[in-house]
Amino acid sequence: MDFAPDATTREITRRVRDFVADEVLPAEPVLAGQLAATPGDWSFRPVVRHLQATARERGLWNLFLPPGGPVGARGGGLTNLQYAPVAELTGYSPKLAPVALNCAAPDTGNMELLAHFATPEQRERWLDPLLDGTQRSAFCMTEPAVASSDATNIATSIVRDGDEYVITGRKWFATGAMNPDCGLLIVMGKTDLDAPRHRQQSMVLVPRDTPGVTVVRGLTVLGYDDRDHGGHAEIVFDEVRVPATNLLGGEGEGFAMAQARLGPGRIHHCMRALGIAERALDLVRERATGRVAFGAPLADQGVVREWLALSRIEIESLRLLVLKTAWLMDTVGNKAAMTEIQAIKIAVPRAVGQILDRAVQVFGAAGVSGDHPLAELFAGVRTLRLADGPDEVHLASLGRAELRRRAPFLTQPAPHPSPEGDPT
Amino acid sequence: MDFAPDATTREITRRVRDFVADEVLPAEPVLAGQLAATPGDWSFRPVVRHLQATARERGLWNLFLPPGGPVGARGGGLTNLQYAPVAELTGYSPKLAPVALNCAAPDTGNMELLAHFATPEQRERWLDPLLDGTQRSAFCMTEPAVASSDATNIATSIVRDGDEYVITGRKWFATGAMNPDCGLLIVMGKTDLDAPRHRQQSMVLVPRDTPGVTVVRGLTVLGYDDRDHGGHAEIVFDEVRVPATNLLGGEGEGFAMAQARLGPGRIHHCMRALGIAERALDLVRERATGRVAFGAPLADQGVVREWLALSRIEIESLRLLVLKTAWLMDTVGNKAAMTEIQAIKIAVPRAVGQILDRAVQVFGAAGVSGDHPLAELFAGVRTLRLADGPDEVHLASLGRAELRRRAPFLTQPAPHPSPEGDPT
Amino acid sequence: MDFAPDATTREITRRVRDFVADEVLPAEPVLAGQLAATPGDWSFRPVVRHLQATARERGLWNLFLPPGGPVGARGGGLTNLQYAPVAELTGYSPKLAPVALNCAAPDTGNMELLAHFATPEQRERWLDPLLDGTQRSAFCMTEPAVASSDATNIATSIVRDGDEYVITGRKWFATGAMNPDCGLLIVMGKTDLDAPRHRQQSMVLVPRDTPGVTVVRGLTVLGYDDRDHGGHAEIVFDEVRVPATNLLGGEGEGFAMAQARLGPGRIHHCMRALGIAERALDLVRERATGRVAFGAPLADQGVVREWLALSRIEIESLRLLVLKTAWLMDTVGNKAAMTEIQAIKIAVPRAVGQILDRAVQVFGAAGVSGDHPLAELFAGVRTLRLADGPDEVHLASLGRAELRRRAPFLTQPAPHPSPEGDPT
Amino acid sequence: MDFAPDATTREITRRVRDFVADEVLPAEPVLAGQLAATPGDWSFRPVVRHLQATARERGLWNLFLPPGGPVGARGGGLTNLQYAPVAELTGYSPKLAPVALNCAAPDTGNMELLAHFATPEQRERWLDPLLDGTQRSAFCMTEPAVASSDATNIATSIVRDGDEYVITGRKWFATGAMNPDCGLLIVMGKTDLDAPRHRQQSMVLVPRDTPGVTVVRGLTVLGYDDRDHGGHAEIVFDEVRVPATNLLGGEGEGFAMAQARLGPGRIHHCMRALGIAERALDLVRERATGRVAFGAPLADQGVVREWLALSRIEIESLRLLVLKTAWLMDTVGNKAAMTEIQAIKIAVPRAVGQILDRAVQVFGAAGVSGDHPLAELFAGVRTLRLADGPDEVHLASLGRAELRRRAPFLTQPAPHPSPEGDPT
Repeated sequence: MDFAPDATTREITRRVRDFVADEVLPAEPVLAGQLAATPGDWSFRPVVRHLQATARERGLWNLFLPPGGPVGARGGGLTNLQYAPVAELTGYSPKLAPVALNCAAPDTGNMELLAHFATPEQRERWLDPLLDGTQRSAFCMTEPAVASSDATNIATSIVRDGDEYVITGRKWFATGAMNPDCGLLIVMGKTDLDAPRHRQQSMVLVPRDTPGVTVVRGLTVLGYDDRDHGGHAEIVFDEVRVPATNLLGGEGEGFAMAQARLGPGRIHHCMRALGIAERALDLVRERATGRVAFGAPLADQGVVREWLALSRIEIESLRLLVLKTAWLMDTVGNKAAMTEIQAIKIAVPRAVGQILDRAVQVFGAAGVSGDHPLAELFAGVRTLRLADGPDEVHLASLGRAELRRRAPFLTQPAPHPSPEGDPT
Repeated sequence: MDFAPDATTREITRRVRDFVADEVLPAEPVLAGQLAATPGDWSFRPVVRHLQATARERGLWNLFLPPGGPVGARGGGLTNLQYAPVAELTGYSPKLAPVALNCAAPDTGNMELLAHFATPEQRERWLDPLLDGTQRSAFCMTEPAVASSDATNIATSIVRDGDEYVITGRKWFATGAMNPDCGLLIVMGKTDLDAPRHRQQSMVLVPRDTPGVTVVRGLTVLGYDDRDHGGHAEIVFDEVRVPATNLLGGEGEGFAMAQARLGPGRIHHCMRALGIAERALDLVRERATGRVAFGAPLADQGVVREWLALSRIEIESLRLLVLKTAWLMDTVGNKAAMTEIQAIKIAVPRAVGQILDRAVQVFGAAGVSGDHPLAELFAGVRTLRLADGPDEVHLASLGRAELRRRAPFLTQPAPHPSPEGDPT
Repeated sequence: MDFAPDATTREITRRVRDFVADEVLPAEPVLAGQLAATPGDWSFRPVVRHLQATARERGLWNLFLPPGGPVGARGGGLTNLQYAPVAELTGYSPKLAPVALNCAAPDTGNMELLAHFATPEQRERWLDPLLDGTQRSAFCMTEPAVASSDATNIATSIVRDGDEYVITGRKWFATGAMNPDCGLLIVMGKTDLDAPRHRQQSMVLVPRDTPGVTVVRGLTVLGYDDRDHGGHAEIVFDEVRVPATNLLGGEGEGFAMAQARLGPGRIHHCMRALGIAERALDLVRERATGRVAFGAPLADQGVVREWLALSRIEIESLRLLVLKTAWLMDTVGNKAAMTEIQAIKIAVPRAVGQILDRAVQVFGAAGVSGDHPLAELFAGVRTLRLADGPDEVHLASLGRAELRRRAPFLTQPAPHPSPEGDPT
Repeated sequence: MDFAPDATTREITRRVRDFVADEVLPAEPVLAGQLAATPGDWSFRPVVRHLQATARERGLWNLFLPPGGPVGARGGGLTNLQYAPVAELTGYSPKLAPVALNCAAPDTGNMELLAHFATPEQRERWLDPLLDGTQRSAFCMTEPAVASSDATNIATSIVRDGDEYVITGRKWFATGAMNPDCGLLIVMGKTDLDAPRHRQQSMVLVPRDTPGVTVVRGLTVLGYDDRDHGGHAEIVFDEVRVPATNLLGGEGEGFAMAQARLGPGRIHHCMRALGIAERALDLVRERATGRVAFGAPLADQGVVREWLALSRIEIESLRLLVLKTAWLMDTVGNKAAMTEIQAIKIAVPRAVGQILDRAVQVFGAAGVSGDHPLAELFAGVRTLRLADGPDEVHLASLGRAELRRRAPFLTQPAPHPSPEGDPT
């Protein structure tokens, strides 16, 4: 549980920090200009492609991939604990930095899924282009017609028919699927309605241009279409046929694979959110010292100082909790770290959302406008409280775990869990 | 302080309720369709025009105008207390109902300003078309370069030059000014830098097509451009010349007129916000009883019931405070009601914002999407915490008033202020 | 729904205000001295007796009793709406003013219970001394062994045996029962375990000196024994025998009578709590203007002004909700006002508790000490969040009612309920 | 920044855990009985003496003393990071465990002060008995007449007169000073009114039995007199004379020494508070699973599960922040850790106070009574929000530091401070 940055972390964060400061921040207004110039365009803009090329040259590519495993050699070889501060740095410019490093959701989760569960043939066809950044992917899980936070509700059917699977259903909030570069849809559906509740689901790999796939429209999130990174699509699957070899993992393993996918994704989301919080605080400090109201800088107002103090406390304590979670995943595995993963999934978006809310108040009308990054960051972090299920689902689950699992405090081996356990 | 609806209120609310239920709610999807079909168009859509015609036929027009005064005969003749539940009903469908009744901000505030302070000639030229709904108007106060919540910061200059005023400055968040029907800009600026701090400001009436006026762009508010009702414009005034007769009120009276304008506007905003809250609760109830997760309707989850209870308490208590404020304005005047006006300005958007935030959680991804009204309502109410100055400015002012004005509780004539005072 | 004080209210509040200011406030240090001088004494101190005599002389006695009914002539003849500001004024000095006017809990609730449900013989023997203030009473409902917020859990047995009832059980938090003047215990228990869940309970009148009654001890509430007004007792009933004529109401009516008792009691508690909040604000203003830290009065700190502003908003909005509840009880009855009664039961103690919490912070160490009234007020209001069942029970109930009863907003007759209904 | 318990920590926490479980918890009802049997007695009860003897035998004595320094050999030789989980364990039974190990405030802070700043003669006379537990001490800083959170307000005078200092002033909340074993008062006052604001203060060592010292009374804290550990005294110093050799440190060093004293004290308070939170959660789990309301265990209520989840998240994140603070103090010193020390001082009592508040709601009336530890824990933790100055003073200071010190995020060497810095 040593959270001090080791030599590898210090070196990689220095390089990423330089990249963000020197390349990414100056590219933000460029992206804004390119977006304004191309309404209706959902593909990557030239500045994204340029940043990706630069990052790759500098060896800052696929850093999110942990060491070991079949494709570990293609990734950064960083542990979760080493990668966490990298993700935080990319959160400082969340529309550009993650994608520049090929470390953006949902492709990261999809690449992990393929790395763990795909056959060699599937990997070659689907994973390699993702690792190269020449293709994008989307994860099709949520459905408009059912409460998808309960995955057993999912209604899309995946029916075996000879050498094929036939997929029928309607998905939405398939992030990235509006991007014309998005070639792969990973679709969750049910293959066996008679199996136990968590064994009915399977995943299939569906090329986006398969007949029967209709990308209906891009959805907005609090008014934003997020077309810079491929938006959020509603997709109809109308008797879509794929070869049976497109099944990912085994039949009935969909639920378990989806759970496995979420662990690292939440760490990444949370670390990036902390980077967003740091960006907001930098913006607030600059505004508060430079802007005058009622005869004095905003910084002289007690409420601004109080907000800065509370924000700093929240960031510092939650960062440590995220680091601990990363460390647990590295040492005892994602499953054993489930309590902590749920804890940060709930706590970080709440706290960062409030930090952004306060920042908006400091900025006044500018804070909700498109001229400053705050409004879009606020909308994005608000959405994190729903992504992978609303907070309330996780709070209920965490509460149940607390009731079920915990022995009285004094019978626990140590005040904080240790993978080695207690030697006595 | 009788808040029970009198006969007039019962009759007018019944008619408005029927209009909203029968005409406005069915028009919501029509508006959505017309908006989707006309990207880049900032004018009123046909459905708005149609609703306005219907409302006018039914005698539901300009209801916001209080009785008495030079143009009272043109309005609804309702007191603030009688109008309050009307405004709440229009808040139930806030994009259509207020404008259908010609009771939408910012035109209402502008009409009141003209009714009170315009010369007969100004009224004929500017006010009459607004009362008829044939023209729209915008209020140009906020500036991007200064903290405009402190009106003494305003930098736009209005310089007398012979028979003309010359206006130079940059304004933004001029709501409605993107609408091609917007003919009138009411511009706040400084005519005398040497006057006392609150006597430097004046207002002039500027036709939108005056040379030197450049409507630069429409701004977004949390991702929404609000082009259905004319958006929020950034406008440059570059040595714009208007006749000296376009001065509204006297030189140096700008600050006082702006203050006078805000009182009724805040009542209206707050009542509409309560209507928004009722809409959200209706949506939540419907969703919670019809949607199943983890084997039971959402309504069976304790947290949903707790949210409904808290929301109901907040709505009930704040509605009463708004009604009291309306009653005070009717009986002792806007100035004497300043504490209550500030109180509701702070409290209602906070509470309704939280009610909407909870509603979004109940709706999951749909709640932030464009398919349900919640996301846009959430964004709009969030912005109310900044409109007319951020909460924090009003909290500080209210706190100072509390320190300054209040005698010990036991020396006050009655536990709640009475315009008649204590007869003893 | 006219909340303006009528002539009766203005007159009675003026007289009560004068009494509190002239007699009660100066008596506070006298009480403190008499308490310090008599450790272990649970009876009324001389200063209480003196204030009661003075109040009675001034005609300020039993004001809580509403007009009409068998004993209405003995009471103040005030409606709930008229009494509400009286209760608020007594809350300003909550240890002395309510008891001085014979308007203190739990005797008020017990007197109402007897007034409504007692036989003439019971009234003569038990109610008259309470109305005269020569005796006190306690309500024995809560039991240590079960969750008493669910009244169906109550385990005390009341068994008919010939002409007697035999009572066996253990009660606690019987407020007032430590006072040697407490002659009457109203005991809730079960007479019929086979009846429907809410028809099993009955109430019997038990003289405190009946054999088998053991007053075990006084309990503390956050460290306070409240011995100035009779404390909170644990009482064992060991085969206590009373005549069958001591049954209050009918067998099986205990639950319904307990519910009926709570409505007015909650109004009283809430209004007094608002008076406590006003006291706290007066104290804070005085402290904040007179105390210097870091070179300026505390009042110059933004946080103090913000707290004052928020507190004022909360008091103003909740007072109106309490007044509306009182008005509903007067016009449509306690049962029809159940939603509002629950709403204020939840909302007022929460808000006043927070107001007191902030006040304590302004006072520093003095705020938690016994030298200022704040600490004891804080403890008392904290306990209100548990009295008559914890908030959470009422939130769940209110949420269920909201789900069950409410039609969509637009189908309701008026935005605020009117007893006359909508004439159309 | 390795927070995993090392071998030393694992061994000492195992021993302390056993001691708390085997000796301290069974002693809780014994203490309650001894306290009830000896009203008015402010000395240690026999059970405390017995526990101290047992702890000393087991080598669990003065563990709070860090390694090194003139008296390090007398202490536990634990770093702050190693001691933190020990303090947390003692917080599980906060009235007995800390004092049993001679690790209770305020003696710990006073011993550290003497260890750092006392002369060898002073150490021998005053420190040794404290280390042996044969005497207690009190720290006399807060004064009733001034806002003592601003130490420059302190009004007590310390005047040099020949070979003596003459002390005149009034102190209160001198914790422990009611205990007859309290022999030493460390008094903060002003020796030089003309010096710079933070150089006017000095400290002198005053035997409690010096002529002119009057221990006026014991103060209560939310109703508790805390007489089990010596209470909180008000003390008048009326021209009290002590030899000039009783000066601690140099003249004008009082402010700096007081600051130095607070760092470790806050760590200890915070860790113990986390132990209190764990105790509360254990109690809640037991209650929630065993208590039935409305037909089901409390644990089935959504709100109870949500509270448990939120409490767990808060404990986990704040424990890490406290551990980081301890580690910073060990590696870069108390001064460099000032931001973190302030952060935990604010955050931990707030969070634990809320955890206790929720626990009280779960327990109902029992939760505020003296039968369960919750009420007294609630009162104690509430007081921590005022101890060493109210939260608001620290929030303002932390906010100022945030404005002043922090460079933009991207220019910082690493996302989390490292004592080695960045090697590049």
